Amino acid sequence: MTMPRQIQDLSRLCIHTITTKPWSIEEAIDRYAEAGVKGITVWRDTLEGRDVSEIGDRVRSNGLEIVSLCRGGFFPSSDSQERSKALDDNREAITEAQALGAPLIVLVCGADPHQPLSESRKQIRDGIESVLPEAEAAGVKLAIEPLHPMYADTRSAVNTLQQANDMCVQIDSPWVGVALDVYHLWWDPNLESETKRCGELGKLFAFHVCDWKSPTEDMLLDRGLMGEGCIPIREIRGWVESTGFSGYSEVEIFSNRYWEIDQDHFLKQIIEAYKRNV
Amino acid sequence: MTMPRQIQDLSRLCIHTITTKPWSIEEAIDRYAEAGVKGITVWRDTLEGRDVSEIGDRVRSNGLEIVSLCRGGFFPSSDSQERSKALDDNREAITEAQALGAPLIVLVCGADPHQPLSESRKQIRDGIESVLPEAEAAGVKLAIEPLHPMYADTRSAVNTLQQANDMCVQIDSPWVGVALDVYHLWWDPNLESETKRCGELGKLFAFHVCDWKSPTEDMLLDRGLMGEGCIPIREIRGWVESTGFSGYSEVEIFSNRYWEIDQDHFLKQIIEAYKRNV
Repeated sequence: MTMPRQIQDLSRLCIHTITTKPWSIEEAIDRYAEAGVKGITVWRDTLEGRDVSEIGDRVRSNGLEIVSLCRGGFFPSSDSQERSKALDDNREAITEAQALGAPLIVLVCGADPHQPLSESRKQIRDGIESVLPEAEAAGVKLAIEPLHPMYADTRSAVNTLQQANDMCVQIDSPWVGVALDVYHLWWDPNLESETKRCGELGKLFAFHVCDWKSPTEDMLLDRGLMGEGCIPIREIRGWVESTGFSGYSEVEIFSNRYWEIDQDHFLKQIIEAYKRNV
Repeated sequence: MTMPRQIQDLSRLCIHTITTKPWSIEEAIDRYAEAGVKGITVWRDTLEGRDVSEIGDRVRSNGLEIVSLCRGGFFPSSDSQERSKALDDNREAITEAQALGAPLIVLVCGADPHQPLSESRKQIRDGIESVLPEAEAAGVKLAIEPLHPMYADTRSAVNTLQQANDMCVQIDSPWVGVALDVYHLWWDPNLESETKRCGELGKLFAFHVCDWKSPTEDMLLDRGLMGEGCIPIREIRGWVESTGFSGYSEVEIFSNRYWEIDQDHFLKQIIEAYKRNV
């Protein structure tokens, strides 16, 4: 495995709207486009009160591509009414993705600390299979995002790429694949081999980047900019791309620290960090 | 797999001195013994300024058994002088364990965010192999403790039981095995199968318990008392015991919250939680 070459342009750079959370969706579209960013992943909170298909048009008329809609999931619950609500919410996300023109929904699968992980994992699979007909009818793919094990209690009972791959094999639909986020998976000794397997299965749908800071001061809202931490992002991009993946590197950073600074300045930092460290 | 029966007595209960951090080693020995606790794992910080072999005698004369000495490890560093210092420190720990009469040292293996995980993993193996002759000569075993992936940047590059098992196979010494801590490993979908494998390899040297709180408010110092969180402790004990393991369940809780309360009261809570939830 040779290290992939440094990136020279922005044609494969996508930014998640949550990364520049202080901006409205309109501001994010305009600023990303002005800066030459080519992809955008839209978080659903930004669509509140908007005509979703108009937002889709605005994205495209600015020369941007919608990479995915974030996020569906949160299927498991020890309460069956909650599970039913979650299915409704995922169906709504599929409708939104179709209206927006997003080809993919990222699934943060969910977990419930009041029931065994095995039960949550079963409910995740059941939940995905339940909404699959709607996803297929809408032409929207679903990406299981394995989350860091520190979120296994409440955010996702799918915590390794091996598990996500296994679940894709079980569900066995061309509409279901994986979103690989370096933040969640960088520590995994099986990451290289499972990335290869994910590619061979045709399941590598998305690639998310940021960095792991030492020390990490908040379990949710202290992600680092690429290069600021210890994740070997370029090496992992190499593993991803050698499967044939030619999609975007999506910058997804939750950070109280960065949300507090001037977002135009932050966008410049993101672009620089992308070129230097992805 | 049937769930193991509820524990009726304290004959397999061990407490780590760090759990009752406000107590000196002398207080811990006296209080544990009075309460009927049978095992003690001694943290090295408590031995500061003490005659270590006298402490060992005091433990035994109180009817307690020393289960292990915590901790060795922290082998990796991008600085070779630091690696050399770490080896010295591990040799000192072996000397202390022998003087104390501790049959086992728990290894928090270490990591360095300034070098690749693969390099840290190699340095861990090299480090263990370097001190192995001294461990063997002293009659002290070494237990690799895989740590939660949220510590992969600085505390341990060994983050799954599979990895720890693999490393034991590579090192291939009867003096090197594994400490299985539910806090670090509960989320792992391969935990049951790797626990079985660990037992078959004859490598299951120690079993640590506490709980994972939802939410966890501090990445290091907010562990829960057994039953306070979402870890299926009894089920995991079942997996551990069905390998033939008949050692102690060691209560190891780092908690600012519990360190602030009356430690006699806390000890009562520990014993109750042990009986009810381990």
